[in-house]
Amino acid sequence: MAVVWHKWLRKSILSPFSSRAFSTLKSNPSQQIIKSPPLLSHDLPDVWTSNSMHCDPPSIGECYNERRARVIDGKSMAAKIIAGIGGEVIRMQESIGKVPGLAVILVGERKDSETYVRNKRKACEEAGINFVMTKLLNNCTEDEVCEALLRYNENPSVHGILVQLPLPHHLDEEKILNVLNLEKDVDGFHPVHMGNLAMSGREPLFIPCTPKACIELLVRSDVEIMGKNAVVIGRSNIVGLPASLLLQRHHATVSTVHAFTKNPEHITSEADIVVTAAGVPNLVRGNWLKPGAVVIDVGTYPIEDPSFEQGYRLLGDVCYEEAVMVASAITPVPGGVGPMTIAMLLSNTLDSAKRAYNFG
Amino acid sequence: MAVVWHKWLRKSILSPFSSRAFSTLKSNPSQQIIKSPPLLSHDLPDVWTSNSMHCDPPSIGECYNERRARVIDGKSMAAKIIAGIGGEVIRMQESIGKVPGLAVILVGERKDSETYVRNKRKACEEAGINFVMTKLLNNCTEDEVCEALLRYNENPSVHGILVQLPLPHHLDEEKILNVLNLEKDVDGFHPVHMGNLAMSGREPLFIPCTPKACIELLVRSDVEIMGKNAVVIGRSNIVGLPASLLLQRHHATVSTVHAFTKNPEHITSEADIVVTAAGVPNLVRGNWLKPGAVVIDVGTYPIEDPSFEQGYRLLGDVCYEEAVMVASAITPVPGGVGPMTIAMLLSNTLDSAKRAYNFG
Repeated sequence: MAVVWHKWLRKSILSPFSSRAFSTLKSNPSQQIIKSPPLLSHDLPDVWTSNSMHCDPPSIGECYNERRARVIDGKSMAAKIIAGIGGEVIRMQESIGKVPGLAVILVGERKDSETYVRNKRKACEEAGINFVMTKLLNNCTEDEVCEALLRYNENPSVHGILVQLPLPHHLDEEKILNVLNLEKDVDGFHPVHMGNLAMSGREPLFIPCTPKACIELLVRSDVEIMGKNAVVIGRSNIVGLPASLLLQRHHATVSTVHAFTKNPEHITSEADIVVTAAGVPNLVRGNWLKPGAVVIDVGTYPIEDPSFEQGYRLLGDVCYEEAVMVASAITPVPGGVGPMTIAMLLSNTLDSAKRAYNFG
Repeated sequence: MAVVWHKWLRKSILSPFSSRAFSTLKSNPSQQIIKSPPLLSHDLPDVWTSNSMHCDPPSIGECYNERRARVIDGKSMAAKIIAGIGGEVIRMQESIGKVPGLAVILVGERKDSETYVRNKRKACEEAGINFVMTKLLNNCTEDEVCEALLRYNENPSVHGILVQLPLPHHLDEEKILNVLNLEKDVDGFHPVHMGNLAMSGREPLFIPCTPKACIELLVRSDVEIMGKNAVVIGRSNIVGLPASLLLQRHHATVSTVHAFTKNPEHITSEADIVVTAAGVPNLVRGNWLKPGAVVIDVGTYPIEDPSFEQGYRLLGDVCYEEAVMVASAITPVPGGVGPMTIAMLLSNTLDSAKRAYNFG
C-alpha cells in the first residue's frame, strides 16, 4: 500500500510548532543534548490510499467459503437497547419526576452531520429523553459555540452535551471541548476520560459511544474477546484509539494499524477480531481477513447518490461482498455500528442523569 | 505459555464491584438489556509464568548470528543528558537566581525503592537540582502521605513531586496520586497526562519517565521508529501502556502483548522493536526475537544476592545471553533503561521549573 505523506511532512516541519523546535536546537546547543528530537514525534495525518471505490462480489470460482458470514444486526440490537432505556426513563419519571436530557450543538450545514443529529433526536424521542439543540452558522465564532456550551453546562435538566464533529476548520476543537463539563461529556472525548479508559484499575465517567458500540456488538454476538488477537484499523481520537484501549481492557491482544503500517494486510490477516475505522471505502478486502474472523466496520464514508432520499449513501471500510465470504460474522454499513452508537449515546445520557439525581 | 488466573477471576467476580454489577442484573431485568456485561471488562492481573529464573549462554552450535548485538549504553547516554541538564541549571541560576527542585515521598523500607531513590538523589546533586525527601513509616496513614504531598504542592521551590511506587497495600495509590498538583506530576501518571499522551494533536505536560527513556534510547541509537512493527510486552499503567502510546505517536505499528496473549512468542518474533516491561526474569528467549530486532529491556526484577553490595541484583525480562546473538541492538540490565529513566525524571523536573518561572 502506497502512503502519500511526504508533502504533508514537509508542511509539518515548516509549521509553527516544528520550526520553533528546530530553531531551538540550532540556537541552543545544550538543548540538543537534553531533547534531541521531539519525543512525542510529529502528528501526521493518516492518508490512506484505497484500492477502489467499488468492490464487486467475487465470481463463483473466487468464493472462499461455502457459508456467508452471519450479519451482526446492529439496528435490531440497538432497538432493543433503546426500548430498555425507554423503560428506565419511565421508571425515573415515575419515581422522581425527572427525565434525562441531551443537548446537541450543531455548527454548519454538513448533510451527514444533519442526518446523524436527526437520528439522535429521533432515538431520544423514542426513549423519552429530552432533546435540545443549538444550531449555529458555519461562520460562527468560537465564543458563540462556547457560550452555548456554558449555558448547557449550567442547565440542571441537561445531563449530556455533545458537539457534533467535525467542526468547521476555523474553530479550535480542543479549546471548545475543554469548556464542556466533564460530568456531561457523554461522548467521553476529554483527555481525562481517555486516560481513565486507558489505565487499568480506573474507570472513565463515559466511554466514547462508537468504541462502546463495537464492544456491545461483539458481546451481544457472543464473540469472546479475551485472549483473541484484535486488529484496529485507524487510530483517530474518537474511534480507533479508544477502541484499541477498550479491546485491551477486555484482554484482547491488540495491534493498531494505520496509514504508516507497512504490511496492513498481513497484520490484519492474523486477527480474530477486526475493528476498522479508517474512513476509506473498500480499504479492507476479503484477502485481508483470516477465515472465520469477526469484522466490525465503523467506516461511514458518504458518497453522493441522488437515488437515495438524503442525496448520499454510506460506504464502509470493508469490501463487504468479499468479506462476507471469509468472515464468520460482520456488521453491515449502514445498519451495524451506526445505530448501536446512538443507543450507546442514550445509555451514556441515562447513566449521567442517574448519577446527577443519585437514582439507582 | 500457561496463564494462572482462574483463582483471581473468581475472587474478582466476588469483589464488591462485580457482585454489585451481577446483583443489579438479577434484580432489575431492564438493566440486562442496557448493559449486559460490564463494558470495561474486569481488571485482571497479568500473571506470567517464566520459563526459568536462569538463562545460560547458548552453546557454540546454537549461535544464531556471527555478530553479537550492539549494546545500547544507557548509562553513558544518561550521563551526557544529566551533564546537559546541569548546564541548563547553571544558566537558570545565573539568569534568575533559581534552581529546579524535586521532592520525593518514600513510604516504607523496600530495599529496591531505597536504591532507586538514592540514585535519583545522586543524579539531582550532579545536575544541581535541589532534592528534598519525606520518609514515612510502612504503616503510615493515607492522610500522612497526602499532607506531605499538599505541602510540596504549595511549595514554590518544588517543581516536581514523585511518590515512589509501589506503595504498601493499605494505601490507595489512585487517591494519593489524585492529590498531586498536575503541574508538578513529573512522573506523568495522572489520567489527564495519559489521555493527552494517547490523543493525537494533544501534548501532555509530562511524559512518564520510563517510556520516555525507551524512546530516547531508540532515537539516540539511530533506530527508526516510524513504520516499524513494535511489540510492547506488558501493559502496566506506568510503563507498558504509555510505551505503547508513545511508540504509536512515533508512527510505529504497535502490538501489546500481555499475560492473556495466546502466542506471545509468535507476535514478538514479527517485531522490529521489542520493548519489554513484564517484570518476569528471562521471559523473552532468543527464539522470540526476529534476527536484527532492537530490544529495550525495562524489566528490573530484584533477586537476593549477598555477593552484591546492596544484597540483591537486578534481572531483566530478556534472556540476555540468548538475545544478544539474535538482536541487532539491546539494552543491558542494569545500565540500560534504568539510568535513562533517571535522566528523564531530571529533564521533566527542569521543564517544569522552566514553565514555572517562564524561563526559556
